[in-house]
Amino acid sequence: MSRFLKEAFKTLSCYVPGEQFQDRKFIKLNTNESPYPPSPLVAARASEAAEGLQLYSDPESAALRKAIAGLHHVKAENVIVSNGSDEVLNFAFLAFGDASHPFVFADITYGFYKVLCDVNDIPYVIVPLREDFTVCAEDYPDSGHIVLANPNAPTGIPMPAEEVEKIVLSNPDRVVIVDEAYADFSEGNCLPLALKYDNVLIVRTFSKSRSMAGARLGYALGNEKLIGDLKLVKDSIDPYNVNLMTSAAGIAAIEENGYYMENCQRIVRTRLETVKKLESLGFTVLPSGANFVFARHSKIGGEELYRTLKEKGVLIRHFSTGRIRDFNRITIGSEEQMDCFFRILGECLKN
Amino acid sequence: MSRFLKEAFKTLSCYVPGEQFQDRKFIKLNTNESPYPPSPLVAARASEAAEGLQLYSDPESAALRKAIAGLHHVKAENVIVSNGSDEVLNFAFLAFGDASHPFVFADITYGFYKVLCDVNDIPYVIVPLREDFTVCAEDYPDSGHIVLANPNAPTGIPMPAEEVEKIVLSNPDRVVIVDEAYADFSEGNCLPLALKYDNVLIVRTFSKSRSMAGARLGYALGNEKLIGDLKLVKDSIDPYNVNLMTSAAGIAAIEENGYYMENCQRIVRTRLETVKKLESLGFTVLPSGANFVFARHSKIGGEELYRTLKEKGVLIRHFSTGRIRDFNRITIGSEEQMDCFFRILGECLKN
Repeated sequence: MSRFLKEAFKTLSCYVPGEQFQDRKFIKLNTNESPYPPSPLVAARASEAAEGLQLYSDPESAALRKAIAGLHHVKAENVIVSNGSDEVLNFAFLAFGDASHPFVFADITYGFYKVLCDVNDIPYVIVPLREDFTVCAEDYPDSGHIVLANPNAPTGIPMPAEEVEKIVLSNPDRVVIVDEAYADFSEGNCLPLALKYDNVLIVRTFSKSRSMAGARLGYALGNEKLIGDLKLVKDSIDPYNVNLMTSAAGIAAIEENGYYMENCQRIVRTRLETVKKLESLGFTVLPSGANFVFARHSKIGGEELYRTLKEKGVLIRHFSTGRIRDFNRITIGSEEQMDCFFRILGECLKN
Repeated sequence: MSRFLKEAFKTLSCYVPGEQFQDRKFIKLNTNESPYPPSPLVAARASEAAEGLQLYSDPESAALRKAIAGLHHVKAENVIVSNGSDEVLNFAFLAFGDASHPFVFADITYGFYKVLCDVNDIPYVIVPLREDFTVCAEDYPDSGHIVLANPNAPTGIPMPAEEVEKIVLSNPDRVVIVDEAYADFSEGNCLPLALKYDNVLIVRTFSKSRSMAGARLGYALGNEKLIGDLKLVKDSIDPYNVNLMTSAAGIAAIEENGYYMENCQRIVRTRLETVKKLESLGFTVLPSGANFVFARHSKIGGEELYRTLKEKGVLIRHFSTGRIRDFNRITIGSEEQMDCFFRILGECLKN
């Protein structure tokens, strides 16, 4: 810390991403990446774009927004794109939160929400998940703008759209952000709510279901006016936020939507298999609508399991906080990766 | 504007980038892009990276930071990278500015600084440039953190490092940010100051001299502790800020440094030619250390010239504010582009 860091940041705790080793190969089941590569068209279009990098990208990202709008049957005015979905979350917190407009979120959810409040000096209200780790609509009375990860992270538990709608209805004067990073692995989604209500913002990412974590592409969908607010923030802090290559890759990924939706189905099938196997090995697994599962073993502590697996070359994600400290979040990899995972897990459980 | 936009943003004026037409071809001399494409290795490495987009980029950007550090003979700890240099400017304003720590900048400079103060609720002090549009060190007494574009934009005027050092010395308890977006087209730079003093931050970009505007890559260099503060902000608002393709492209661009430095020399030569020709046509041209010139004609108003050229297919940049309203900023293009520009300019001046 330098002597110049502003007072408010002296106790700031930043977001800690999952471990990303550059120099050692792991079976990497810790950051919810897709085990499948992007479609060939994605790399081809990104390559083409790379030859013309001397020119700025379109600050409006018009072509990309049009493609996303087409995918979801909305207008381009309902879409804003960002350098990963983290960036559009920051735009939203900045646009709507201030000292008299706190944000409300669950005690167990994506850790970035709290960081965004801290860094932007926005107060927040924490709502504990129920005993079974579900979000309950009646726990969200009118106390601030709301951000819900749905399916939730790291639990993976999806909340039915009708339940989310109850929250929207009981908070008509609050923005309700539904962070649907994992919705493509789930059965429903809250997209229709964004078209029906003027206070619902849906956040999506190309990182998981579209195999583009390394490209950094997220977006938000919502009422034209809400999107306009986010655009005002974007134009004030990062006007040319999406680069040419990522933009071209994103458009290609939408053109080849079928490939990605098949991958999602495949990951869901592998998830169902994984849950069965974990349960047969003595794990309790929370219901998942995501590309990961959150599981606790009856005999081995969460941190111990995480460490033992890491020693043996498998990375999963452990959070050492409160009532989830005995769980681990395990990304669903390819069939081969999961076979390998279960072989090594078997060794760990034997000892 | 939605009914949810926070009060403080209701009067926010965002940054207005130069026009970027997607559907009409212009001779584009309005956003200071390089007329030369990136080197072939850049596209090749970006393409390779595009095939593995399913994995996250390194949140530390270790390899890229190491390459940049090597270029400038500093340590990787002295470097932070960002999604364009605008992003690292935002990190710095957020890290160091607050109600009791205003920012100080010139009345005529990069318009983004004021926007960053407004969006981050930081007060600012405006210091007028001298009559001849130069920055004068003695105008910067100890009144807040300082941000200088050097060479300045849109004037193009470079300030000698010894003059900048005077500002640093008279503001030992303020951060002095030197935004060197155009330094590669100039004779000196302030890099040595960042190593000598603990309060100097140098901001650079790959957009101009490295033909990568469309890739979004900027960085800051400075004392390890200052860089640590920026990293804290990065990890709190955009942890994976630089994507895999841009990172690979950036490393390649450093490997082929010679190609870019030759292009810079070529642009400087074209600039010298351009200044001569403009002067012979009745323009006053401010001294430039950048890849653009700022020029005023003795007979035609700035806005009129801008509009006439635009009608004829040439884009230059006009700012309609105060004492620069009779100037236009003209990016230095390739020799062919400039020949074309002068042919069309000749037509405009005849009428």
